[in-house]
Amino acid sequence: MLGSTHGTLTTDFRARVVACGEEPHASVVSLPTATRQGGLDVSGRPLHLAVPDLDRFFRPRSVAVVGASDTEGRPNTGITRQLIAWAERVGARLHPVHPTRKTVFGRPCVPSVAGLPEPVDLAVLLVADPLPVIEELAEAKVPFAVAFASGFAETGEAGALAQARLAAAVERSGLRLLGPNTNLNAFEEFRDDLEGPAIALITQSGHQGRPLHSLQELGIRLSHWAPTGNEADLETADFIAYFAQRPEVGAIACYVEGLKDGRSFLLAADRAARAGVPVVAVKVGRTEAGAEAAASHTGKLTGADQVVDAAMRQFGVVRVDGLDELQDTAALLARARPPRAEGVAVYSISGGTGAHFADLATAAGLTLPALSAAKQDELHTWIPGYLNVANPIDNGGHPVGDHRGRKIIDAILADPSVGVLICPITGPFPPMSDRLAQDLVDAAEATDKLVCVVWGSPVGTEDAYRTTLLGSSRVATFRTFSNCITAVKAHLDHHRFATGYRSPFDEAPRTPSPSFRKAQGLIRPGRQLSEHAAKQLLRAYGIRVPREQLVTSAAGAVRAAGPVGYPVVMKASGPHLAHKTELGLVKVGLTSASQVRDAYRELTDIARFESVDLDGILVCQMIDRGVEMMVGVTHDALFGPTVTVGLGGVLVEVLHDTAVRVPPFGEKDARDMLGELRGRALLQGVRGGAPVDVDALVEVVLRVQRMALELGDDLTELDINPLVVLGRGQGAVALDALAVCR
Amino acid sequence: MLGSTHGTLTTDFRARVVACGEEPHASVVSLPTATRQGGLDVSGRPLHLAVPDLDRFFRPRSVAVVGASDTEGRPNTGITRQLIAWAERVGARLHPVHPTRKTVFGRPCVPSVAGLPEPVDLAVLLVADPLPVIEELAEAKVPFAVAFASGFAETGEAGALAQARLAAAVERSGLRLLGPNTNLNAFEEFRDDLEGPAIALITQSGHQGRPLHSLQELGIRLSHWAPTGNEADLETADFIAYFAQRPEVGAIACYVEGLKDGRSFLLAADRAARAGVPVVAVKVGRTEAGAEAAASHTGKLTGADQVVDAAMRQFGVVRVDGLDELQDTAALLARARPPRAEGVAVYSISGGTGAHFADLATAAGLTLPALSAAKQDELHTWIPGYLNVANPIDNGGHPVGDHRGRKIIDAILADPSVGVLICPITGPFPPMSDRLAQDLVDAAEATDKLVCVVWGSPVGTEDAYRTTLLGSSRVATFRTFSNCITAVKAHLDHHRFATGYRSPFDEAPRTPSPSFRKAQGLIRPGRQLSEHAAKQLLRAYGIRVPREQLVTSAAGAVRAAGPVGYPVVMKASGPHLAHKTELGLVKVGLTSASQVRDAYRELTDIARFESVDLDGILVCQMIDRGVEMMVGVTHDALFGPTVTVGLGGVLVEVLHDTAVRVPPFGEKDARDMLGELRGRALLQGVRGGAPVDVDALVEVVLRVQRMALELGDDLTELDINPLVVLGRGQGAVALDALAVCR
Repeated sequence: MLGSTHGTLTTDFRARVVACGEEPHASVVSLPTATRQGGLDVSGRPLHLAVPDLDRFFRPRSVAVVGASDTEGRPNTGITRQLIAWAERVGARLHPVHPTRKTVFGRPCVPSVAGLPEPVDLAVLLVADPLPVIEELAEAKVPFAVAFASGFAETGEAGALAQARLAAAVERSGLRLLGPNTNLNAFEEFRDDLEGPAIALITQSGHQGRPLHSLQELGIRLSHWAPTGNEADLETADFIAYFAQRPEVGAIACYVEGLKDGRSFLLAADRAARAGVPVVAVKVGRTEAGAEAAASHTGKLTGADQVVDAAMRQFGVVRVDGLDELQDTAALLARARPPRAEGVAVYSISGGTGAHFADLATAAGLTLPALSAAKQDELHTWIPGYLNVANPIDNGGHPVGDHRGRKIIDAILADPSVGVLICPITGPFPPMSDRLAQDLVDAAEATDKLVCVVWGSPVGTEDAYRTTLLGSSRVATFRTFSNCITAVKAHLDHHRFATGYRSPFDEAPRTPSPSFRKAQGLIRPGRQLSEHAAKQLLRAYGIRVPREQLVTSAAGAVRAAGPVGYPVVMKASGPHLAHKTELGLVKVGLTSASQVRDAYRELTDIARFESVDLDGILVCQMIDRGVEMMVGVTHDALFGPTVTVGLGGVLVEVLHDTAVRVPPFGEKDARDMLGELRGRALLQGVRGGAPVDVDALVEVVLRVQRMALELGDDLTELDINPLVVLGRGQGAVALDALAVCR
Repeated sequence: MLGSTHGTLTTDFRARVVACGEEPHASVVSLPTATRQGGLDVSGRPLHLAVPDLDRFFRPRSVAVVGASDTEGRPNTGITRQLIAWAERVGARLHPVHPTRKTVFGRPCVPSVAGLPEPVDLAVLLVADPLPVIEELAEAKVPFAVAFASGFAETGEAGALAQARLAAAVERSGLRLLGPNTNLNAFEEFRDDLEGPAIALITQSGHQGRPLHSLQELGIRLSHWAPTGNEADLETADFIAYFAQRPEVGAIACYVEGLKDGRSFLLAADRAARAGVPVVAVKVGRTEAGAEAAASHTGKLTGADQVVDAAMRQFGVVRVDGLDELQDTAALLARARPPRAEGVAVYSISGGTGAHFADLATAAGLTLPALSAAKQDELHTWIPGYLNVANPIDNGGHPVGDHRGRKIIDAILADPSVGVLICPITGPFPPMSDRLAQDLVDAAEATDKLVCVVWGSPVGTEDAYRTTLLGSSRVATFRTFSNCITAVKAHLDHHRFATGYRSPFDEAPRTPSPSFRKAQGLIRPGRQLSEHAAKQLLRAYGIRVPREQLVTSAAGAVRAAGPVGYPVVMKASGPHLAHKTELGLVKVGLTSASQVRDAYRELTDIARFESVDLDGILVCQMIDRGVEMMVGVTHDALFGPTVTVGLGGVLVEVLHDTAVRVPPFGEKDARDMLGELRGRALLQGVRGGAPVDVDALVEVVLRVQRMALELGDDLTELDINPLVVLGRGQGAVALDALAVCR
């Protein structure tokens, strides 16, 4: 059984399969039912995420407060008071539960969940140990609970064990739990007087969501807040998937310290991508220090940051670093309509401001199209002729005495190359900036294009800012150039992403390829394969390797060299053998039988001297053209197998110029990986050289992905380096390979 | 004559030297007077900057307003009114000057400068053409003038010519001029009720300085504002040098679109560095688009951005991108005392906030030392034992009921490893954050360590922020994690820089080295040198090249190969010859006389076929070990010759992994350049290889610098690629070189 009635996904789905009596690997190969249902990909990971129905969780009609108190000075008293106020505000019925109290704040109190006067939608657990209550809740058919208690996985091993017991009880019960180690944020005040699409918020630390909640004071609508805490049951992915289908949600903002499960996060992001709902996330773990601090806070792994970063990009999740960027980007993405064009026009009351903004915007990858001569002529009917209006548009001071100012803004917005108008106002000068702000607000009301303003004053108490700009739900207002540029870029990028999005899960392989059986026979559990065996693995997946023979005598080497073809390369081959070149275990450019014989002797001598365990000597075809790349597989704690491509040879270690993807991904992603490399120009031909066979390289990346998915955890590591990519149409050849089995 | 009585530096000091009757080059070699005075380096560039005395400019006792008006609706009327208000505020006497008016705003008006009732310190020129007034001002011995008029270099060629005429008149006159194309910003209100060291501000666009001026409303002191406009005379460098010696100035903040002269900027930055006064600058020109927009605004070159960036770093100028970063960084650097330690302690009321901040701070290069066990024990007397206090320090909620909160903060500040305490408060929770803010302010008053707070609420109208935090001149308050981290990093970096600073101008070469005469004979004006000639140039400067001979016959080649030593490399050598490898004009690994003879024939055949002009064939020693680097010289429009080092071979074109410096620079900078390379690990030995001879590489960089300085503009471009760096103690060899003469 995969997934409870609520579609729970556990961290380790393999454990679940095992618990059902099958061997993990067998589940992939011989579970035709699961396979036909399309539930799992060939690696045994789920392809679908059941979306929990959380309507009653966020809008319960009746709530039980287990551990309610009205004794002054006790922490639960403050929480009970807040809950009563909240219940009154939203019209929910609240029932205190306490073993000894008769009333709490004048409300009748029942001794246990069993004694509740009506079925409740939600139980808030203020008790130190929520475990014993879970079964009672299940019996009372309470669908949702929130557990405040801390002292679980965030405190270390014992706590993690307690959390696992709690999670197991919750899973048996069928109810859905938020927490433990969470708080009241889900039941804060959400203003319903604010207009437009809302931000839905998910945070693994309540305090970190506070500034996003405050956005309501600036007129930005917030619809939900899920403080997920330790995620013993409900996790970030569940809330992303749920929010993505809510009509009032324009964007989802997340503060993530660690993910419970990589695949469920990707499936949730996939749902949001299909729905066109942007997800913006801060994810802690850029550094070891941050990852450690986060782990000690929520008891979760943060994952290798390069992998997290890539996974987010694959599924269109906008990653930002600061909470201020999270606020500004989520607010824009929630509220902005789809862009009509990608061009950005910068309108400023100072040539310096325009130049400065244009510089930073262009550096960030925004496009500022030069306006047409006709449009510039039109603008010059209101702007003096000596001012530059090509874009950035310098008005030399926004006209305030008549309607020229508004006409300028409208004329810019009417240009078909312009999708976004940005007006940076670095400092208030009320006689001019008040009118400018109003003109921008009015123009924004009359267009479906995006109008952004940067209010650069550090003070921020000015009327034009507080009243005029923040009073408009049509103008996007920022406080810094940088956040405006980040948000606009994210908006345009996300629209492009969502428009072209094809879910990789629809096309993910579900059954093993014919290569798989061949490869299975080559796997040696717990061992590093010899170069020769690793190359056979590659060959099984249709990846080209040089002509080569494994020989065990000098005479054999000479016999092999003929069919391989002179000049040949000779290398020691054995398990546990890396860094052959440094050990002198590689001989290149051997052109005669005598050189081959000498090389054989020398290689075996060195191996003896260095106590290297050989399975023989490889006599290989010599390939000295092409561009050296590397393609590899590593295992990520969160996401499982990942595929890497990069500059190969010695450079891979020096430059770390690599791009990574989390399977499943398609051909487009494989091509995009190459575009991410700093050294990508190598593939286009250097110093007049011809471009290399990029198609062949992409094909290798995809075949390696297939191998990584099919061999799953059995292949701990694969490193093809160098993979020599030859000229266009000539393919790519794996000159060396290292494979480690689990 | 170099420098007027006021120490003017013109853009093109060579032009000045020429005007004095000497040839530019002769000035370097045969001007013993200037050389002995130490006025010029060997390239002919000045080594000293005269600092103008601008006291009376910023604090004039009497001011003439030329073009004053009180006719409603005229732009000059508004300016006159502002000037009168300002004069009354600062106690200056103001004299309107106008040819026809008898009074202006009731003050007696004189018809011309000659009629002024007293000597004035400053003339404000509101006339469209300031040129004719300059001579009158000089006759009246007015030391300073400000010209508002626009329509000069920012408008194109005709304007640039008008500006050059104005500049020439100003130089003849002996007065110092601010502008043209500037404004009243120098005479804004500077609050004298604010405490502590001040920011002095320099902007090339008045509007861009507005938010920095507003900082006064947040309690940050501002002492001066120089809106330099087109810089026909006074330039950014003059103000940096002046502000650096003012006792009230704690930091200098600049908004720069283009620099008038590279060397004067460096000399000014050098003065600030010697004085330990930080300079923080936004410099437009990250992109072509930005550079163009800036040029059309102020008519100045922005310079190659990588060079500007390097030059700023060399002299400790802190470069930032946004005006918000400029404000926050300048404010911190102006006010913070020298750090007692480099360690940063992060104190937060939420584990999540601490983890997030620690992650970003560490990623930016700040150090968060783990607190000692003893210190952690001490903190745990006030903080529950299950909370992590190693650093970040999670207090689980700042204690507000007693003195524990303050004790925690004091205990952290008392730790000798901690130089900076940062408390990120992401959202206000008045019962806790009000007391926390007050405790931080009180603790900051009692320590000489730096206390920073991030007030993360997007609202910013809260009392704890507005009153408590901004009311303190001892707490540095920020609104975003990012700006706090940028500023603290800049503070620590600048202190380290200033403490270890040795001016490169003190050690810059003033007289040509013996190499120079040898090199001079090799220069061929207007030509690209052949490889052989370029290598002779290198040899003249003691840079090692392979054993090689230039031959013009097959027999000569064979004769040469003997002494050069087999195996040899043969290459075509000729002027205008680049990309030899692609043309097939390089043969490597020739091991016999017959191979040498064949190679000679083939190379000359190809050259004939490709119509390549040869001066012969080079027979060279073959060196196939070592790491390929490149060292080069290019000319920057602003800074003159610059020296580049980078990964060599084919990689230089693919990876653009280079570091650049503007001469003069010392050995430490040459070493730092290598540290900036992404591929620096190549020099430390790859895959168990030995480290290479870094000292030899540094020596080549320094010799190339000397060559660049001595040959000056005569050497337009030098490109040593590859420079093969051999094993430690074995040196570096220039395998190929390209040199272009002016």
